[in-house]
Amino acid sequence: MANLMTDLASRAAEIMTRVRATKPLVHHITNFVVMNETANITLCAGALPVMAHARQEVEEMAGAAHALVLNLGTLWPEQVDAMLVAGRRANVRGIPIVLDPVGAGATRFRTESAQRLLEQLAVSIIRGNFAELATLAGHEATIRGVESVGTSGDPTAVAIACARKFRCVAALTGRTDIVSDGFRVARIANGHELMGRVTGTGCMSTSVTAAYAAVEADSVVAAASALAAFGLAGEIAAQGAPGPGTFHVHLYDALAQMTEEVLRAAARIEVAG
Amino acid sequence: MANLMTDLASRAAEIMTRVRATKPLVHHITNFVVMNETANITLCAGALPVMAHARQEVEEMAGAAHALVLNLGTLWPEQVDAMLVAGRRANVRGIPIVLDPVGAGATRFRTESAQRLLEQLAVSIIRGNFAELATLAGHEATIRGVESVGTSGDPTAVAIACARKFRCVAALTGRTDIVSDGFRVARIANGHELMGRVTGTGCMSTSVTAAYAAVEADSVVAAASALAAFGLAGEIAAQGAPGPGTFHVHLYDALAQMTEEVLRAAARIEVAG
Amino acid sequence: MANLMTDLASRAAEIMTRVRATKPLVHHITNFVVMNETANITLCAGALPVMAHARQEVEEMAGAAHALVLNLGTLWPEQVDAMLVAGRRANVRGIPIVLDPVGAGATRFRTESAQRLLEQLAVSIIRGNFAELATLAGHEATIRGVESVGTSGDPTAVAIACARKFRCVAALTGRTDIVSDGFRVARIANGHELMGRVTGTGCMSTSVTAAYAAVEADSVVAAASALAAFGLAGEIAAQGAPGPGTFHVHLYDALAQMTEEVLRAAARIEVAG
Repeated sequence: MANLMTDLASRAAEIMTRVRATKPLVHHITNFVVMNETANITLCAGALPVMAHARQEVEEMAGAAHALVLNLGTLWPEQVDAMLVAGRRANVRGIPIVLDPVGAGATRFRTESAQRLLEQLAVSIIRGNFAELATLAGHEATIRGVESVGTSGDPTAVAIACARKFRCVAALTGRTDIVSDGFRVARIANGHELMGRVTGTGCMSTSVTAAYAAVEADSVVAAASALAAFGLAGEIAAQGAPGPGTFHVHLYDALAQMTEEVLRAAARIEVAG
Repeated sequence: MANLMTDLASRAAEIMTRVRATKPLVHHITNFVVMNETANITLCAGALPVMAHARQEVEEMAGAAHALVLNLGTLWPEQVDAMLVAGRRANVRGIPIVLDPVGAGATRFRTESAQRLLEQLAVSIIRGNFAELATLAGHEATIRGVESVGTSGDPTAVAIACARKFRCVAALTGRTDIVSDGFRVARIANGHELMGRVTGTGCMSTSVTAAYAAVEADSVVAAASALAAFGLAGEIAAQGAPGPGTFHVHLYDALAQMTEEVLRAAARIEVAG
Repeated sequence: MANLMTDLASRAAEIMTRVRATKPLVHHITNFVVMNETANITLCAGALPVMAHARQEVEEMAGAAHALVLNLGTLWPEQVDAMLVAGRRANVRGIPIVLDPVGAGATRFRTESAQRLLEQLAVSIIRGNFAELATLAGHEATIRGVESVGTSGDPTAVAIACARKFRCVAALTGRTDIVSDGFRVARIANGHELMGRVTGTGCMSTSVTAAYAAVEADSVVAAASALAAFGLAGEIAAQGAPGPGTFHVHLYDALAQMTEEVLRAAARIEVAG
């Protein structure tokens, strides 16, 4: 297992470099709160972001992309329709779809929209917090707005259940991140509590995950690598940051400037199961 | 009066702590320019933001919230409809609505939408600049885009008129902030001129006001406390900031890291009338 | 020519001061990725931004503005309609329209929307990257999302062709920026590679260009001055920036705090043709 851990940290470093070398295009259909921030973190990951949500162009844009992010943060009906159109094109082309079911559980519209996307599309990775994934898996959860509160359940069980139910990889972020395809389980211990004090860090982790999934076919490895790199960027950004504003700025710097050596040495990915 | 001033600074500090302890959910239906920034400042105030504007979910989201922000910064007709739906739910539940009539006076659509919301909803607090509140109160005002220019009138008179006309609390921000319920008047002298050089600081002050109103029933006290805390954050952020970019980042740090002691000592809230 | 270069740097400095003195209102109908960032850079340029896209108010808002930005970054059909309405009002009033055809060439919807705007409106300045302007000029180009890749063609030829075709000024930004009205050509050598690592710097340059065009009737001089000032801000911001996050923040500081002396000394505008 120590061996596997070493391997995953090395693979994370190798994937980070591959993203930077190939600059995959990550098409986002996403929320209005984090459009700028997720575009910037995608650039910092070494990929190219493009945001496009009009029904008139999403199919064509998804047709040029290397990964597709569907993020429900400020969804409205026409946007969900556009997600389905883009998603079908992504599925036909075989590029990964990463779903961020922001606020699933908070309103029926969000829960049902996430379910509709999961029914009609082959999603590669669902990235969400405990409450969002628990809701989708059919477990009990409490969500306040888009914030998971009262995490009494077992995140690993939720991730496994969610992955098996939707036949995809579940990436459940929290104090420890859990990534599972329903059989294999990886736990990522990188991250910093300041990440919870900046809006959209969850959405950012989704974008980095999509950038990594664009170049790595094993979605468990791609998601675990992305969460390790992003979490480590958070740890580095927190050093000497007097508050969430400065931390937020340093987060971009830290991901953009991360070296393979640093990631290989500090990625804390543990394989279980 | 010296006594009352001391009281209000202490109450501001106490409310700040109460927000942090209870983490109220502030539902925003707001503009696209400041969605990220107002979400982040709400987090820095200690509350939880959620942005949701789809007709399909606003009633349910407002049903889970502890305060509702209605901000007209980039309004469109369906958004105004969603505001009415969410607002009615907020009124039935008795949670405070804070209205930010961005650009009232600049276009008929903005002025009339603000009036429509004020007619059909019980708004707790209107937070705006001189031109916006003067327009709503029926006074003369000049607005350039969303910026109040040529403040020849008396802000206190405008705040009182606006509060009486709409039977709410008016929070008029400017060089000195005025908060009035039409009878009591508080003047807040905190703030810094750099706040006028970053877009959305007015909208941010609205979000902080909503966070404070979520936990404090006296809307004059809530708004005055919020504006003192936010203004003081501006003063702290300005120290050593070489320009508006750095200032903007430090503003989040300053509000998030503010202690009760600092706010109690430096809040400059004067009660008049 | 050395003489002309000196002149243009001096004119850039003079225009920068004129913007600050007159605070023109720049009405933006723009994309959701950069609304906050373009509003802030407009403020840093010394102008006042206003973002408004509802059909119900764009004509009135354009009627109060001193320049109009039409940016296609996240366009949808109703937004294009609103752009036409606002654009006609701008044309009748004689205020400059600056078009940013983000992603022209990436999807038919973007290309055709840009063409429709150019056919139906008198646009003063088109600001875009190589691929966007080449697409509009009818040249070969490769675009990945909204990023120009593989710039094998001649940017000067593209700028001249675009300007002649649409009888406007073309401002083609890249390693060297090219500004041309189809006859005169200015090359601006200011800028820094970090600008390509922050999303929306192209859109920001469009907003600064509009602010300068609001006070300067010669669109070649206005655009060249804006790109020199903005590019120089990038050079200053890059000094000591550990990554794109910090650079982004310093960019606002640098433009806001720029003095006439610094711009006059460091603007690198070369006139050719």
